Amino acid sequence: MTKWNHLFADAFVSAEAEIGVSVEVGPGAVVHSGVRLGDHVQVGPHCVIGQDSQGKSDSTTIGAGAIIRSHSVVYSGVVLGPQLETGHHVVIRDGTIAGENLRIGNFSDIEGQCSIGDYCRFHGYVHIGRGSTIGDFVWLYSLVTVTNDPLPPSEIFEPVSIDHGAVVCVGATIMPGTHIGIGAFVCAGTIARGEIPTGAVVAGPDGSVVNHVKRLVHLGTGLQHPWMNHFRRGFPEDCNERLEALRREILASCVEDDFLGGRR
Amino acid sequence: MTKWNHLFADAFVSAEAEIGVSVEVGPGAVVHSGVRLGDHVQVGPHCVIGQDSQGKSDSTTIGAGAIIRSHSVVYSGVVLGPQLETGHHVVIRDGTIAGENLRIGNFSDIEGQCSIGDYCRFHGYVHIGRGSTIGDFVWLYSLVTVTNDPLPPSEIFEPVSIDHGAVVCVGATIMPGTHIGIGAFVCAGTIARGEIPTGAVVAGPDGSVVNHVKRLVHLGTGLQHPWMNHFRRGFPEDCNERLEALRREILASCVEDDFLGGRR
Amino acid sequence: MTKWNHLFADAFVSAEAEIGVSVEVGPGAVVHSGVRLGDHVQVGPHCVIGQDSQGKSDSTTIGAGAIIRSHSVVYSGVVLGPQLETGHHVVIRDGTIAGENLRIGNFSDIEGQCSIGDYCRFHGYVHIGRGSTIGDFVWLYSLVTVTNDPLPPSEIFEPVSIDHGAVVCVGATIMPGTHIGIGAFVCAGTIARGEIPTGAVVAGPDGSVVNHVKRLVHLGTGLQHPWMNHFRRGFPEDCNERLEALRREILASCVEDDFLGGRR
Repeated sequence: MTKWNHLFADAFVSAEAEIGVSVEVGPGAVVHSGVRLGDHVQVGPHCVIGQDSQGKSDSTTIGAGAIIRSHSVVYSGVVLGPQLETGHHVVIRDGTIAGENLRIGNFSDIEGQCSIGDYCRFHGYVHIGRGSTIGDFVWLYSLVTVTNDPLPPSEIFEPVSIDHGAVVCVGATIMPGTHIGIGAFVCAGTIARGEIPTGAVVAGPDGSVVNHVKRLVHLGTGLQHPWMNHFRRGFPEDCNERLEALRREILASCVEDDFLGGRR
Repeated sequence: MTKWNHLFADAFVSAEAEIGVSVEVGPGAVVHSGVRLGDHVQVGPHCVIGQDSQGKSDSTTIGAGAIIRSHSVVYSGVVLGPQLETGHHVVIRDGTIAGENLRIGNFSDIEGQCSIGDYCRFHGYVHIGRGSTIGDFVWLYSLVTVTNDPLPPSEIFEPVSIDHGAVVCVGATIMPGTHIGIGAFVCAGTIARGEIPTGAVVAGPDGSVVNHVKRLVHLGTGLQHPWMNHFRRGFPEDCNERLEALRREILASCVEDDFLGGRR
Repeated sequence: MTKWNHLFADAFVSAEAEIGVSVEVGPGAVVHSGVRLGDHVQVGPHCVIGQDSQGKSDSTTIGAGAIIRSHSVVYSGVVLGPQLETGHHVVIRDGTIAGENLRIGNFSDIEGQCSIGDYCRFHGYVHIGRGSTIGDFVWLYSLVTVTNDPLPPSEIFEPVSIDHGAVVCVGATIMPGTHIGIGAFVCAGTIARGEIPTGAVVAGPDGSVVNHVKRLVHLGTGLQHPWMNHFRRGFPEDCNERLEALRREILASCVEDDFLGGRR
């Protein structure tokens, strides 16, 4: 029988979990032994933190200042950096390691053994297959699915990697073994595959290169990608240098006048 | 510390919440202060009602006769009309106002600041972006995603509006700024955009107009759209006049013999 | 008022539920009267088992050895065979009957009155419409949606049936009335419809037949479908004979040299 920590009268917090200062745990939440919650962490109602995985029970580290919203499940064997923010009903499985200030939307699912950089933003219903590698400042919009099996079902394992600053729009599917280059842009509903160059825009059921992100312009406002030209909300000031370096690298990738190779 | 209402021994109901007559609250559910539950409301197990939003805590009003199924989350600052019915694991964020008898399926997510009319039916995994405006008698089927940012990520905000009686089928994506006219029909998997006329049928990755709903006929039964021709289940009798007016307006929109403009 | 079983101090287990030996029930889980949990069943935190359906409360049977992960909801009137395994936040509605060792991923939803065979594997966000019939050894990947209404909304009911050993890849939509033949393969993002022959590969927005599964080969490894050629993980040895018979039947369906009928 687990012994509960009686400081959290309405929750099920193991007496063996390590709890930082000013931690809040909502009614009904379960925090298993082996979990370390950093200072000022908020765990919402009915979450389960440190869920063991097939009998294995590793430690789980949640960095300082995290907000984990209700009904979320974080497995044991997970290390999440400071200022994490999850939506409701999020699942993060064993072996996932994420950097600073990851934000994950409602109903998203990180299937484990994933490496995720700093300041990533995932919206709702994002499904990241086991073994994926994701850089810094990556945007995954609703219903993006990242796969890993090229001949389903099989034992072949070809995980995806997504480089810094890439943007994957609503409902895109990333096929096994895809590499998405720095700052690339995957349009809504695309089935992306293969090698996607730095700064490329891909679209359609074959994931063809159709443009360079530099040519993504909003007519009404004149705003122009790469996105770090005009969007910095939610990033601390000390990100500016990294974002600026990414911006330059993406712009530099647009060397040809006729980038539209994918259309010929 | 919140003081719990001891009439609900298995749940966490704030003593400051206003509770109507014959209200039921399932085990583990959390009802915050500032919530008003109308008469005969049922709150399922493990729901969270009146969740505050970034420190702001407005009131939350759930109309009489609502059934909120387990694991659902309703934020503070929400006003939901009578006879609401949610599936399980539904999320409704702050600033959403809905009319009578909204029905929302499992795992759906209304992202806030949305205005929703009467008698809407949303199936599962429906994601409605912040700021959307939705009329009466609107049908959104599974995995429909309603967006609002035309150059993601950006600060540009172009929410969608969907008029009375429109039908959006499984897996359609509604691009930012789209206006879906009265009784229009968006086929499964469509990426819809721009101005969709009253009664139009749109389909495909460009959301082209391919038909008028009047020409949607089921061969086996002879049933023919607009849907209020043959479907009234679940609507109270006093809706008939409103449905009849919609039906006439949709039929009247099919004036040309050659409506199929989108195909030329 | 329900009387709780005090052997499960942290959960809400009806004293009238039938509980097998070595059953575990996680904190906050609700188990209603009329539920029978077989031996060694594990019910995760915050699950709801035996939820009644519109006032009707039938019995619910969960076979021996089942693992039901947290936040899942199983309605009354459901019969699930032994060795069931669900992910988190799964919903299974009334009238569903499933065979042995069904595995269902996170956020999947079986809408009721479905018949499901043995050893099926459903990944996450799988939505199975009411009344579907699914054979043995069927694979449904993430976001697969199985529909049933050909003229939504209408009272017409044309459920789908999926035969033994079929594989439906990520994000495919199965239109109403579709019959997927034995061992057929539906590619990612396909909108499948009509009669899909044994062993056929279908793809694209029209669900055209583009190949026979025998011609699905992974170049790097030389592995070749049908999948039971090379994949047997997770099936007990006594399945081998059934899988072998399926394999032979699928191979035998590729009689013509020019199977690619769908492309001409």
